[in-house]
Amino acid sequence: MVPFNVTVLGNGSAVPTSFQNPTSQLLNYNGKRFLIDCGEGTQMQMIKYNTGHKHIDNIFISHLHGDHYFGLIGFLNTLHLFGRTKPVNIYAPSQIKEIIDVQLSAANTKLKFEIKYTFTDKIEGVIYEDNNITVEHFPLNHRITAYGFVFREKQKERKLKKSFVEKYSPSIEQMHKIKQGADFISAEGNVIKNDEITDPPEPSRSYAFCSDTAYYEEIIPYIKGVTLLYHEATFDNSQQDIATEKYHSTAADAARIALKAEAKKLLLGHYSARLKDRSPLLKEACEVFPETVLSEEGKTYEI
Amino acid sequence: MVPFNVTVLGNGSAVPTSFQNPTSQLLNYNGKRFLIDCGEGTQMQMIKYNTGHKHIDNIFISHLHGDHYFGLIGFLNTLHLFGRTKPVNIYAPSQIKEIIDVQLSAANTKLKFEIKYTFTDKIEGVIYEDNNITVEHFPLNHRITAYGFVFREKQKERKLKKSFVEKYSPSIEQMHKIKQGADFISAEGNVIKNDEITDPPEPSRSYAFCSDTAYYEEIIPYIKGVTLLYHEATFDNSQQDIATEKYHSTAADAARIALKAEAKKLLLGHYSARLKDRSPLLKEACEVFPETVLSEEGKTYEI
Repeated sequence: MVPFNVTVLGNGSAVPTSFQNPTSQLLNYNGKRFLIDCGEGTQMQMIKYNTGHKHIDNIFISHLHGDHYFGLIGFLNTLHLFGRTKPVNIYAPSQIKEIIDVQLSAANTKLKFEIKYTFTDKIEGVIYEDNNITVEHFPLNHRITAYGFVFREKQKERKLKKSFVEKYSPSIEQMHKIKQGADFISAEGNVIKNDEITDPPEPSRSYAFCSDTAYYEEIIPYIKGVTLLYHEATFDNSQQDIATEKYHSTAADAARIALKAEAKKLLLGHYSARLKDRSPLLKEACEVFPETVLSEEGKTYEI
Repeated sequence: MVPFNVTVLGNGSAVPTSFQNPTSQLLNYNGKRFLIDCGEGTQMQMIKYNTGHKHIDNIFISHLHGDHYFGLIGFLNTLHLFGRTKPVNIYAPSQIKEIIDVQLSAANTKLKFEIKYTFTDKIEGVIYEDNNITVEHFPLNHRITAYGFVFREKQKERKLKKSFVEKYSPSIEQMHKIKQGADFISAEGNVIKNDEITDPPEPSRSYAFCSDTAYYEEIIPYIKGVTLLYHEATFDNSQQDIATEKYHSTAADAARIALKAEAKKLLLGHYSARLKDRSPLLKEACEVFPETVLSEEGKTYEI
């Protein structure tokens, strides 16, 4: 299987502290990098964790609270100063353009590369597609317009059985069709069913990013069966009131979503600055959904 | 003498690196803090160096290149989240207001405190004054409109000689006038000259911040005789061409300004990301102006 993983650059909530930074993640699909959110200091976190930034062509911004995008203008500026000419695709609510434009204008900067915008508040469904993956966005339930993202590997090809290839020596064209699910017709005119000559494809992996949001069951159809679910867990059970008031989730909320969505694994983050000890979050989530992990900055999680 | 010093939070130029951050300084006058520039990550540097931020009421932004202000919106947001209600004064080119407003609007944030703007491109001369100091701004020579700042202690009072006070027991009103320079008339009607009964005041200290700018002698009248001069020194002598092209200074340029302005001491900063070894900057500056120091992040310099 090709590499498919996510590096957490920042997993704190609104206010940075000595132990956590605002939200940012770097998704890697076989060397192609996707930046998800870009809080202040994201480029410093990239330096700290030595991730590089050359292979980032696509930047997804969940919503326009500062802890999810204040580092974007600085990151774009750095790409410009490094001489980048390849376009950058930004997927974000439409006000992002004015925010970037006014800052470039104040500095009299004309970027050496083009920014291609996809305004997430103007369209629905799939916002990115290449040969291997799709990215779909879906509404979260927060104080301002906010979107989650799900990165899905496309359905992979079925695998030809060696014994079949050796016996029948099919042409390249035939092999291609069989991998897509076609049956094989032998020189004698016999039909051999596809499932006799192939093995099922590797399962398609998927990653969902859900931050910031209150507990919101409407997201479940979008993230159903996801391999790895990152769901915000700003608060613990004792802070349910403030979570509700601020349209954030508790760790148990995140776990209930993971359970109902039949996720394989749950990754928690967006921790409140007040929580120095995160072990209650893990405990409370595991009581609902045992396959839960606390995200740590600088760590990479396989999908 | 009351404390008057400056802590360097960031002394790098445009691109942050593992060893330097964008420009920011925290000036302290007897506990009152003045923030000068606010590059991305300034609030993280405040946390790292444990400076606090409660006593900052005045923020001075030299110009609107991102490495001098991209951290401002995040810092203001943090003050808001910490519940600040006291107004914040921002002294900056006028486009700053639109930049801040558009980002607050996108987040649907109404700050709990008022921002009082002084637009440095709309007025000349003194932009701040309290009982102890004044701040004057003056044009630098950069690619976009940029200003230096000079913080000056006001002329202090003359000091009464103990022998005079013991002999004549002057009233509080008389002492006040004498400290301002008045002569004393004794009960017998004799005039005693001020300089016989007082010592000269402590010298008034001053701090000038000059970044970003090319070598520019027009600033000298504004910074004449300054106690401590911070002058950008982005490049070394071997990079004179790029310094000229980009409207930056070499360390030797900074030293020539310090010499002609008769500064007491020169502090260098705004180092190019390419210069990992800064000792050539110090050497080249000291050949012109021996009282030169390389600024280091996290260090506090007495004025």
